[in-house]
Amino acid sequence: MDERRLEELIKEKKYVTLKKELEEMNEVDVAELLEPLNIHTSLLIFRMLPKDLAVDVFAHFSVEQQRNFISVVTDKELKDIIDELFFDDMIDIIEEVPANIVKKILLNSKEEERNLINQFLNYPPDSAGSIMTIEYVDLKKMMTVKDALNHIKETGLDKETVYTCYVTDKNRKLEGIVSLRKLVISDEDETIESIMNEDVIYVHTHDDQETAAGIFKRYGFLALPVVDKEGRLTGIITVDDIMDVIDQETTEDFQKMAAMSPSEEKYLDTNIFVLAKHRIIWLLVLMISATFTGGIIRKFEDVLQATVVLTAFIPMLMDTGGNSGSQSSTLIIRGLALGEIELKDAGRVMWKEFQISIVVGITLAVVNFFRIYLFDKVGFLISLTVSITLFVTVMVSKVIGGLLPMIAKKVNIDPAIMAGPLITTIVDALSLMVYFSVASFLLNI
Amino acid sequence: MDERRLEELIKEKKYVTLKKELEEMNEVDVAELLEPLNIHTSLLIFRMLPKDLAVDVFAHFSVEQQRNFISVVTDKELKDIIDELFFDDMIDIIEEVPANIVKKILLNSKEEERNLINQFLNYPPDSAGSIMTIEYVDLKKMMTVKDALNHIKETGLDKETVYTCYVTDKNRKLEGIVSLRKLVISDEDETIESIMNEDVIYVHTHDDQETAAGIFKRYGFLALPVVDKEGRLTGIITVDDIMDVIDQETTEDFQKMAAMSPSEEKYLDTNIFVLAKHRIIWLLVLMISATFTGGIIRKFEDVLQATVVLTAFIPMLMDTGGNSGSQSSTLIIRGLALGEIELKDAGRVMWKEFQISIVVGITLAVVNFFRIYLFDKVGFLISLTVSITLFVTVMVSKVIGGLLPMIAKKVNIDPAIMAGPLITTIVDALSLMVYFSVASFLLNI
Repeated sequence: MDERRLEELIKEKKYVTLKKELEEMNEVDVAELLEPLNIHTSLLIFRMLPKDLAVDVFAHFSVEQQRNFISVVTDKELKDIIDELFFDDMIDIIEEVPANIVKKILLNSKEEERNLINQFLNYPPDSAGSIMTIEYVDLKKMMTVKDALNHIKETGLDKETVYTCYVTDKNRKLEGIVSLRKLVISDEDETIESIMNEDVIYVHTHDDQETAAGIFKRYGFLALPVVDKEGRLTGIITVDDIMDVIDQETTEDFQKMAAMSPSEEKYLDTNIFVLAKHRIIWLLVLMISATFTGGIIRKFEDVLQATVVLTAFIPMLMDTGGNSGSQSSTLIIRGLALGEIELKDAGRVMWKEFQISIVVGITLAVVNFFRIYLFDKVGFLISLTVSITLFVTVMVSKVIGGLLPMIAKKVNIDPAIMAGPLITTIVDALSLMVYFSVASFLLNI
Repeated sequence: MDERRLEELIKEKKYVTLKKELEEMNEVDVAELLEPLNIHTSLLIFRMLPKDLAVDVFAHFSVEQQRNFISVVTDKELKDIIDELFFDDMIDIIEEVPANIVKKILLNSKEEERNLINQFLNYPPDSAGSIMTIEYVDLKKMMTVKDALNHIKETGLDKETVYTCYVTDKNRKLEGIVSLRKLVISDEDETIESIMNEDVIYVHTHDDQETAAGIFKRYGFLALPVVDKEGRLTGIITVDDIMDVIDQETTEDFQKMAAMSPSEEKYLDTNIFVLAKHRIIWLLVLMISATFTGGIIRKFEDVLQATVVLTAFIPMLMDTGGNSGSQSSTLIIRGLALGEIELKDAGRVMWKEFQISIVVGITLAVVNFFRIYLFDKVGFLISLTVSITLFVTVMVSKVIGGLLPMIAKKVNIDPAIMAGPLITTIVDALSLMVYFSVASFLLNI
C-alpha cells in the first residue's frame, strides 16, 4: 500500500480493507506510512491494528511521533504498549523524550521494571550495557531438548531472539549457549548440558559498543551475551542493533575526519545553532593554525616581491599537498578502524607510504614541470622550483598522513582527528618553507 | 589458546591435547592461530581437526593461505573441502585464486556444481547475486509443521541458515517465508501454508548489493531471498555477509571522498604501484584544476605587487574555505548514503546550510578581524578585506558543499566524489576572486 491508497481508503472510510491490508505489511512500512498523517487519523488507524503489530509499529515511529503518541494515548493504552515493547526499545524512547513523558511512562510501569529502567539508564552511553535487551531465552543445564523447546514455545513470542538460547545457573551465571538450530536437530531426550557450547564469547556491560560490533563482524554472530563484573548474564545484544552501531560509529568517523565534533542526531532534525556549534570549534582552531603558514609567507615577502609569479603556484602546491596527505591518512584511519592495520604495522605503513610517495611525487612533478614550462611559460628555473617543491610536498605529506593516525592511536587519541583538515594545515606550512628555500637557492634571491 | 601455548604443544608433540583444545575454540580463532605457522605444521594440525571444523577453519583463512592449502592438499581432501564449503564461500575463493587452482577446484567438483559455479561467476560484481548462497531451507506449502521440522532436522546442518525457511512451488517460485521461531511455537499439525508470510520482501539477482544492505538495515532481517527475473528463488543473502558489504561500501565512500579510486583490497596486501595508481589520477585532475586558481592570482598580480601582505592570508582563506565546504559536503554525502537525506530535501538542505553559513561565517570573520587587526597589526582596511572575504568564502563554500552532492545524486554520479578535495579546488578559485575584488575596491588598487 502506498500513501495514495491509504488516503483513498481513509477518505472512503473503508476501514476493514485498510486494516486487512496494513496487517499484511511489515511494521517498518506501516510506521512510515502513518508518520505523515495528522495525529488523530494516525491514532485512529493505530487503534485498529492488532496489539502485536501496533507495538511493533510504535517501536519504529520517529522519536517525535512517539512523543506525540505518548501524550495523546490513554494510560491504559500506554501501559499496554510499555508491557509489550522490547526493553531496549523502551530505554531508547525514555532517553529521547522529555521529562514529563518519562514520568508518564514510569508511572505506568511495574516497580521491578522501574528499577531495571534506572539501572539501564546508568550504563555509560555507547557501552554494551546501553544497547542490550533483557528478553532472551534462559535455559538450565539439566533441561532436556524437549523441555527447552517447550519452554521456547511458551515464551518465545516475547523474546527478542530465540535463535541463541542462554544457559545459566541459579545465580544467573552464564554457563553456555545453545543455538535453536542445535536444539532442532538434536534428539529430544538429550540434556542441554550435553549439547551446549561452553566456550562462550561475551562482552561486559561497560565495554564499548564498538568492541561488541567488532565481535559481531569477526564471528558473524546473530546475538552476543552481555555479563556483569560477576559473570552474571544481564542481557544480550542482537545483530540488528549492531548494524545501527556500525553506522553510527562510521558517521562519527566521517564527522571527525571533516573537522566536526561528532553528533548522533540526524542532519535534518538538528537545529542550525547546534550544527554551527559542531563546526565552528575546529574551523577556529585550524584558522588560527593557518596563521603560522601566513607567517612563513610574511617572512619570505622579499622573495615574493622579487618574483611575484611564485605566488601563483601557492594554491596548487597547498592543495596537492593537502590532497595527497588526506589520501594516506584516510586509508590508514579506515584500516585502523576496521582492524586491518594495527599498531605493530607502523613500520610497514611508513615504508609503504614512502615508496608510494616517490612514485606519486615523481609522476606529478614531471607532469607539472612540462605543464608550467610549456604552457605557463614561466621559465626553466621557476618551473624547476615548483616541481621540486611539489615532489617534496607529496613525499612529506604522504609520510605525515600515514604517521599521524598511527601516533594518535598509540597515545589513545582517536585517529580520525588526524585526517585531511589537520594534515593540510601542517603540510601547508612545510610545503611553503620548502618552496621559499628552493626558490631562494635556485633563483638566487 | 594463544600462539605461545600452540608452539609449546607442537614442540612437545602433545597433539591429543592440542586437538582437544582447538575443538573447543571458535573456527575464526583457529584460522587466525594457524595462519602464521609454516604450511606443513599448519596442514598437519588442519588434518587432525574434525571435518566440520576443518572446513569452517578453511573458509576463514586468508586468500593467500587458502591458495597455499589448495596447492598442497590431496585431490581427495580438496574434494571433501569443496563438498562441505558453503557455496558463497567457494565462489569467493574461486574469484580470488589463480587460474590453475580454479582448474583444480573445478576438476574436483560435480558437474551440476560446475554449472552453478559458472552461473554465479557471471553475476555482476557487487550485485545481490554475487554475494548470495544457495544453501537455504526449502519447504512446500502442503507440509505440516512437523514435516518441516523433520526436514530441517535432516538437512539443517548443511544450510547457511535455518532460521528463515523459504516456501516454493514446483517451479521454484517463491511463495512465502516461515521463520523457525514461528515453526517452533506453532502446533505441529498446522500446514506451512497457514502459517507462512506471503508478503515477502526480496531482491533480484542483478540488484546492487547496497540495495540489499539497505533492506537489512531497514527491516532488521537475518536473511533476504534473492529471486531471478521469473520470480524463482535462486539464493539467499545472510546478515553476516551484509555486514561485510556495509564495511566495503563505506570504505569505498571514504576512498572516493579522499580523492582516490575505490579498491576492495586491504591496504597492507596491496602493492605500492596499485596504491599509487589509485591515487595519481585524482591528484593530477585536481592539480591541473588548481591552475585555474593560479591564473586568478596572476591576473591580479598588480594588486599583490601593491600590497604584498595580502599574500600572507591566502593560505588561511583557502584552508578555511576548503574545511567549511568539506564539513557540509561530508554531512550531506553521509546523509544521502544512509538514506536520512533524500533528493526531495534539497531545498531544506540549502536553506539550512545557508543559515549555518551565516552563523559560522560571522563568528569566524569577527574573530579573524580582531586577531589580525590587533596581533598582526596589518591595518584596518586590510583586516576588513580579509574578514569580508572570509565571511563570503564560508558562505559560498557551505552552500556549494551542500549543493554539489545533491546535484551529483540527481544526475546519478556518486555523491562521494563531491567531497573535500573537489570542493576545495572550486572554493579556492571563488574565494580568491572575492579576495582580490574586495581588496581592489577597499584599498583602491
